[in-house]
Amino acid sequence: MTSISIIGSGNMAGAIGALALKGGDTVEISARDAAKAASLVRTLGGGATVGTWGAAPAGDIVVLAVLFESAVDVVREYGEALAGKIVVDITNPFSPTATGLAVPHDTSVAQLIAAAAPADTQVVKAFNTLFRDVLASGGPRDVFMAGDSADAKASLAAFITLIGHRPRDVGDLGMAHWLEGASLLEMGLARSGLGFGLSLGVDLGGK
Amino acid sequence: MTSISIIGSGNMAGAIGALALKGGDTVEISARDAAKAASLVRTLGGGATVGTWGAAPAGDIVVLAVLFESAVDVVREYGEALAGKIVVDITNPFSPTATGLAVPHDTSVAQLIAAAAPADTQVVKAFNTLFRDVLASGGPRDVFMAGDSADAKASLAAFITLIGHRPRDVGDLGMAHWLEGASLLEMGLARSGLGFGLSLGVDLGGK
Repeated sequence: MTSISIIGSGNMAGAIGALALKGGDTVEISARDAAKAASLVRTLGGGATVGTWGAAPAGDIVVLAVLFESAVDVVREYGEALAGKIVVDITNPFSPTATGLAVPHDTSVAQLIAAAAPADTQVVKAFNTLFRDVLASGGPRDVFMAGDSADAKASLAAFITLIGHRPRDVGDLGMAHWLEGASLLEMGLARSGLGFGLSLGVDLGGK
Repeated sequence: MTSISIIGSGNMAGAIGALALKGGDTVEISARDAAKAASLVRTLGGGATVGTWGAAPAGDIVVLAVLFESAVDVVREYGEALAGKIVVDITNPFSPTATGLAVPHDTSVAQLIAAAAPADTQVVKAFNTLFRDVLASGGPRDVFMAGDSADAKASLAAFITLIGHRPRDVGDLGMAHWLEGASLLEMGLARSGLGFGLSLGVDLGGK
């Protein structure tokens, strides 16, 4: 049994927390509003605990499940409390119409987080191409990971497998930019009639 | 039986031409070096013809199967000969290491082609996420399309279906930027151990 920490108390925090508990992990939820964290912990039930906002998370893997606009600020606020952790950025920095990205063209939320985090924090972009309901469905769906640390991606891959999905390594953290763009492609596909039950995945030509 | 024109005589021209002939289309091949066009036509066999470089292509759908570095120049050279055509941009503007794109950040080869083409030419980005051997395998694999004309995408979708693949509309031509980036993700996935038989596709959660 391993332990995962989630910063945030919204839909994605709830979906990942529920899957982790189902997989046998313990789950720690932290939110700026402790009452919201406590509420989500009650919803999740056994094995979930409330963590202290801004304090070192209990888990080695810390899922940052906050809005993209506040992600960098939250990491800065946690500061050294995230030293040595694997921080998983799941955000989609969509423009208001979800047709472009609201980050500079030569970076990504994940890279901005890495720049704001302690030097020995490993940032991995993942889960952003799974709509909440698709993630919650339990899969298996492909979960793309971009990060500079092979060890961090291996640890996260084990977690992704634990919760019933399929880890797919797309390369270093620079690829996070294109993963954020891949979500725009998914929005386009969904709007073209396929609906929001879709996700991008790897086709190995099995049939 | 419809007719398709291919500008180019390389691997992708050969792969698309062979699939089109197999599907029952007629195929016209044009190349700056007419001898290379004639050679490919001989290889392809019955139903393939050599077109005149720079002259109006016979087909309504014109696949631009040239290197990305020369794509815009070729379209400019053809000029009004491409008026009213559906021009399909299949290029991948990879940087030398295939870790970034060799086009400005706010555009794509497809958009640069559209800017250089006659006003009533419809440009669609497609096929760029299929490695040559994957394309040639006959599928079905997902072929993503980005373009501003629903009619042009409908015509191209019929062609994609004819050659045994699966059309997937990702939205307007602005999405071509992210389709070009999607090929970088495929390179990353391939290098991470999955090999070059892969393609990105839509997972609708069927199982």
